[in-house]
Amino acid sequence: MNSFRFYNPTALYYGKGQIESHLAEEVTRYGKRVLLVYGGGSIKRNGLYDKVQHILADAGVTLFELSGVEPNPRLTTVHKGIDICHSENIDLILAVGGGSVLDCAKAIAMGAKYDGDVWDIYQRRGQATDALPLGTILTLAATGSEMNAGGVITNWETKEKLGGGSPYTFPKFSFCDPENTYTVPQDQTVYGACDMLAHCFEHYFHPTHHTPLQQHLIEAVIKTIVEHTKAALDNPHDYDARETLMYCSTMALNGMISMGINGDWACHAIEHEISAIYDIPHGGGLAIIFPQWMEHTKNVNPTRFATLATNVFGVDGAGKTDAELADIAIAKVRAFYQEIGAPQHLADYQIGDDQLERMASQAVRFGEIGNFKKLNKDDVFAILQASL
Amino acid sequence: MNSFRFYNPTALYYGKGQIESHLAEEVTRYGKRVLLVYGGGSIKRNGLYDKVQHILADAGVTLFELSGVEPNPRLTTVHKGIDICHSENIDLILAVGGGSVLDCAKAIAMGAKYDGDVWDIYQRRGQATDALPLGTILTLAATGSEMNAGGVITNWETKEKLGGGSPYTFPKFSFCDPENTYTVPQDQTVYGACDMLAHCFEHYFHPTHHTPLQQHLIEAVIKTIVEHTKAALDNPHDYDARETLMYCSTMALNGMISMGINGDWACHAIEHEISAIYDIPHGGGLAIIFPQWMEHTKNVNPTRFATLATNVFGVDGAGKTDAELADIAIAKVRAFYQEIGAPQHLADYQIGDDQLERMASQAVRFGEIGNFKKLNKDDVFAILQASL
Repeated sequence: MNSFRFYNPTALYYGKGQIESHLAEEVTRYGKRVLLVYGGGSIKRNGLYDKVQHILADAGVTLFELSGVEPNPRLTTVHKGIDICHSENIDLILAVGGGSVLDCAKAIAMGAKYDGDVWDIYQRRGQATDALPLGTILTLAATGSEMNAGGVITNWETKEKLGGGSPYTFPKFSFCDPENTYTVPQDQTVYGACDMLAHCFEHYFHPTHHTPLQQHLIEAVIKTIVEHTKAALDNPHDYDARETLMYCSTMALNGMISMGINGDWACHAIEHEISAIYDIPHGGGLAIIFPQWMEHTKNVNPTRFATLATNVFGVDGAGKTDAELADIAIAKVRAFYQEIGAPQHLADYQIGDDQLERMASQAVRFGEIGNFKKLNKDDVFAILQASL
Repeated sequence: MNSFRFYNPTALYYGKGQIESHLAEEVTRYGKRVLLVYGGGSIKRNGLYDKVQHILADAGVTLFELSGVEPNPRLTTVHKGIDICHSENIDLILAVGGGSVLDCAKAIAMGAKYDGDVWDIYQRRGQATDALPLGTILTLAATGSEMNAGGVITNWETKEKLGGGSPYTFPKFSFCDPENTYTVPQDQTVYGACDMLAHCFEHYFHPTHHTPLQQHLIEAVIKTIVEHTKAALDNPHDYDARETLMYCSTMALNGMISMGINGDWACHAIEHEISAIYDIPHGGGLAIIFPQWMEHTKNVNPTRFATLATNVFGVDGAGKTDAELADIAIAKVRAFYQEIGAPQHLADYQIGDDQLERMASQAVRFGEIGNFKKLNKDDVFAILQASL
């Protein structure tokens, strides 16, 4: 494996009742003026908003609000949040929602302490040197944003969707209560599973020498996602299934299964170009792109695909070549997407071929993408075309 | 799984060259008066002592020393270290060694800030409220102490070996360079493997409801230990094998594979009684006890043993009962210990039956031990007797 530095100081609270028992104590550690960041109001419908308000009011906290954070959160919303932090002297940002809300809150936290436009940081033209403290209450198992320092923001004016972060944007604490995901709609549950699975794949396919433990750890997460997504869809109130998916989402992108690995990340880069133009759900885009990316890259290292077949999907490898096993692995991945009802073609989102050229160009504007296989513009174009 | 809070703020540096690049920067963050804690001098023979001295002298650090920390580190040594911290106004403790040295340094760190005898904390009569900052340089893959807050100290006067810790004793940073384990003797390499394997087993056998991801993650670590120990023994300079074992040791006990699990820990408790009297290597004691504990408890949940056989050792479960697979799993564990040359009987350490009664009584002096199966004095006696 590569040399690495790992550091993840987020205090993670898992399970029912944790919010009631520990939220006030964690929040008030940082102050009494809190900016509550949330999305479209689902937390008002399921009672979480009232619960949080109640707990924090009892603790003497003054709440300010930024609501309406979009899926694919926008820079304009981030700017609004930064303004509130400045004008109201906010001590702590509390993000209540899924990955988009959390990512938006991270951008606000950095931006509030950054001398300039926070978009600089996402464009790699500036670096955060500090951030407001941030806490989260997760309501969607998907991005892993609850236990990492990164996030993705969309600049709708320039149609750019960029990832960024800093050592200062690890949440100080995150509350993950599976019951808060009971009301997640079916399609969002599917997209969440696709997203966490994609995080595993991005780390499973890499060029780094000798990473046996990481490989087995990633296989563990993939296997568990595959084994439990259907149960959560069949019964949205299945606590065990919801808990397991939530835990998989955290573990898939908190850095613990990928230490010392130079992950691929081409599919994420390609998907960002699609949703920067078409505003489709991130997880849906990933489910469409990944099988095509696998077809396009399988010959780079068929053995890696073969272990996916044998170690995750339990395929008996006896008498089969790695190339044959690679094809079986890709078929198994497709079958899983199909089983859970994930989108399989760009056409599922009414996306045609008129912007492929633009998306391919944009994806490689900083250079070739991906580490398992370096992709140039032609590669990206081919993958997008196969995804139609 | 159970509700849990997870928090692990240790900054982990892995790989060759990390000490040269980052040690000075990490140390001087906490001050310039550093207590170097180490063991019997192996770090003088392999050059690590000189390297660290040189790097820190260049950084303007004043070093004080506590050397001669024992395997099974003693309370008297901890007291010596605390005295130095007080008399020399130490800013940071830097532990260079294996788990014993690190555990000793944790006790010193707590004790230096504790109003009373630090032994109170291990006896559960007092609680740490602060600790001196602690950094580590690991030289032995075994205990996982480099990325957790706990440690074990022996009071030789009372023949008690107790574990303890606090939220303040996570190392601030740990440097893990596999090359620093090249000179670890064969027997210590074996004991280290047995120790990390035992940490996996303690978490694999538990009574907690529904923990599929944890199960697969633990299987990943066990599998990797089993696959790589022999290679490190066959060629002590095999970087890949040494790196993999080191990484397994860290992951086996940093809490990442065991979140929300109520682990067993009876074997550790029993082993502590053996080495508190006979001062044998911890890993060696665990290798002797574990197969007997497995025989004694297998009927509690044969399925858990069966998954060990199928998922870790690749046994084809078709047509076999869980009870049959459990026996196969135990045989596989024994075979692994045998393959790497681990001790198998107390007689290997010239331990007879004259203290069994005392050890069994001591093991349960605070009540029954173990969570997978609660063990009373008779159970412990039976396991010890079977281990002769």
